[in-house]
Amino acid sequence: MEVQQFLHMNGGEGETSYANNSTLQRTAITKVRPIVEEVILDLYCTSFPKKLSIADLGCSSGPNTLFVISHIIDTMEKKCRQLGHPLPEFQMFLNDLPGNDFNTIFRYMLPSFYEKINVEKGVGLEQCFLAGVAGSFYGRLFPSKSLHFIHSSNSLHWLSQVPQGLQDEMGIPLNKGRIYLAKTSPPSVFKAYFAQFQRDFSLFLKSRSEEVPGDGRMVLILCGRRNSDPSSSECSSQWELLAQALNDLVSQGAIEKEKVDSFNLPYYAPSIQELESTIEKEGSFRLDRFEVIDINWDGSEDDNEETFEFDKLASAQNVSKCIRAVSESMLASQFGEVTIDELFRRYEQNVVQYQSDGKGKFINLVICMTRKG
Amino acid sequence: MEVQQFLHMNGGEGETSYANNSTLQRTAITKVRPIVEEVILDLYCTSFPKKLSIADLGCSSGPNTLFVISHIIDTMEKKCRQLGHPLPEFQMFLNDLPGNDFNTIFRYMLPSFYEKINVEKGVGLEQCFLAGVAGSFYGRLFPSKSLHFIHSSNSLHWLSQVPQGLQDEMGIPLNKGRIYLAKTSPPSVFKAYFAQFQRDFSLFLKSRSEEVPGDGRMVLILCGRRNSDPSSSECSSQWELLAQALNDLVSQGAIEKEKVDSFNLPYYAPSIQELESTIEKEGSFRLDRFEVIDINWDGSEDDNEETFEFDKLASAQNVSKCIRAVSESMLASQFGEVTIDELFRRYEQNVVQYQSDGKGKFINLVICMTRKG
Repeated sequence: MEVQQFLHMNGGEGETSYANNSTLQRTAITKVRPIVEEVILDLYCTSFPKKLSIADLGCSSGPNTLFVISHIIDTMEKKCRQLGHPLPEFQMFLNDLPGNDFNTIFRYMLPSFYEKINVEKGVGLEQCFLAGVAGSFYGRLFPSKSLHFIHSSNSLHWLSQVPQGLQDEMGIPLNKGRIYLAKTSPPSVFKAYFAQFQRDFSLFLKSRSEEVPGDGRMVLILCGRRNSDPSSSECSSQWELLAQALNDLVSQGAIEKEKVDSFNLPYYAPSIQELESTIEKEGSFRLDRFEVIDINWDGSEDDNEETFEFDKLASAQNVSKCIRAVSESMLASQFGEVTIDELFRRYEQNVVQYQSDGKGKFINLVICMTRKG
Repeated sequence: MEVQQFLHMNGGEGETSYANNSTLQRTAITKVRPIVEEVILDLYCTSFPKKLSIADLGCSSGPNTLFVISHIIDTMEKKCRQLGHPLPEFQMFLNDLPGNDFNTIFRYMLPSFYEKINVEKGVGLEQCFLAGVAGSFYGRLFPSKSLHFIHSSNSLHWLSQVPQGLQDEMGIPLNKGRIYLAKTSPPSVFKAYFAQFQRDFSLFLKSRSEEVPGDGRMVLILCGRRNSDPSSSECSSQWELLAQALNDLVSQGAIEKEKVDSFNLPYYAPSIQELESTIEKEGSFRLDRFEVIDINWDGSEDDNEETFEFDKLASAQNVSKCIRAVSESMLASQFGEVTIDELFRRYEQNVVQYQSDGKGKFINLVICMTRKG
């Protein structure tokens, strides 16, 4: 099952759209802003290029789509003003899978984006050139040595495909009743997931290494874990609660057991060590820095909220909507559109219960790399 | 009224879509193939670049979208094989207004395009990089000196806006009952149309001149005329028949007379002399060559069909569908969706009558230019 065919954030601008349910991802990007700022300024001040070519991989279609690019222009405009330099031209590429809603980006987001950078920064249409690139970042997307800076947020935990080897020789599912790695998943399932991640992430690095020149930079943000155990609750609970909800629907006869048994997410949340070793083995990039950032499941920024009461139902609703916006395309293709509303009503209840003692956390890994010369 | 807001070919892949009604435009592109081939080979053989950056402006969304690009790759593959050169990398930009259906291009056309060039030419994903650029070509679209070759087919006769000055000082329409230049249009209407064309085409040339380096090339194909009179039937009959159909609907009370009186197409079919003088005046490009090509209204390639019988109804149906696919977005925004079916039933009848003695012809002007050094 090729991920290209069915993985995309919910399109449009409706209630269940990704556009309206992506606070979580925005919080992650916001927290990484100072890092992106530092990298982009360091890059600029090394050679003062007249044109900066930048790609955002997994840009999706929503309020976050132009958030990073907007911030980069902001950063550069301040720096150039301070240095008395003319602003470089920006060539910005927005990439996502072909199922992404590029029409919405082009029709509704670009006009207001251009107006904003023009009014606020005096940056005109003749200064900032945006293009959409549809395709998987597990492969080449751009010409050789054509990019200075690559950014990707909340995308690289999605694999290129559901790992192979999740059935036995007879075709019987090995990860029954679960949809991701769980404590009770057999060792071969762990092995298959990790192998797929390694293959994918290596191919990602190799592809990017051809697209940036020596000294080209990347900042990547993805879900991961501190724990060495891939089934650790810090990186899998959100999916266990979804598996529970699916299994409840099986008990009710609303969906077939076989469909749940054979469904597995094309997702992997790596540990820092796994990332490091894959980067080292692939060899094209130097790891300059990494950070671990905790983000509340509901995307709220109240870092000390453990000590306070929070609205458990509202929080669970946000979590449910967010998980729905990113996974509905896959779930609907396996279980049918009709089950989705009921599935996420149950999921919401599961989240309320799970968060009874405090909010769930996503572990976000931030890695900064430089192309070896 | 900004053309960006309402001008786009009919999206999707349905019966009235541009995708299914663009034979006419394909015929034009096919006839210009040898010219494009010559220009691209001359360009390549001047400096043998390792990367060729190419833009197709007004790419639309249909079977023609990747037709030119596909042909260029074909041409280059043959030449490089012959010379024993490795194929350069291709960076291909597909441009159209933001209302264009880029999702359809990315989701349904690119996968089969990549498969085709891979199977037929051995050209892989890592060789040919496509990006979508949404915006008006009456302004900058690409970074400075970033393109080798620019192509535009069947787009530049669309103006950036309906010309200003088509009402008198009291706001009373000057071109009542007509939707484009007609024999009976007042001189000020002719003047307003020509001024808009000159402004737009000059801005187009200026914008492109910044995007290509010295020796960069352009091949442009647009509707025009041999006759010096802008209301000559060779370039305006298709719109007069549409105005007739609209006026019939007014007589029937189906649409308001005021709506027709105030409607004018953002379209201009220039003469060769008008093009030449605008290019010379703007000054950035050298005109290398122009050709005039006649294309049957129905897109058929039967050049000698005048001497034969043809199916007048089938031909008129094709003409009607084609004109509908390119103008429906504008007509619907002025007259409402509901009138469109009836309008084009009448239009078809008008075309049958008009073509009773032979097929209507579009005059296509083909111009090849080189950026002055």
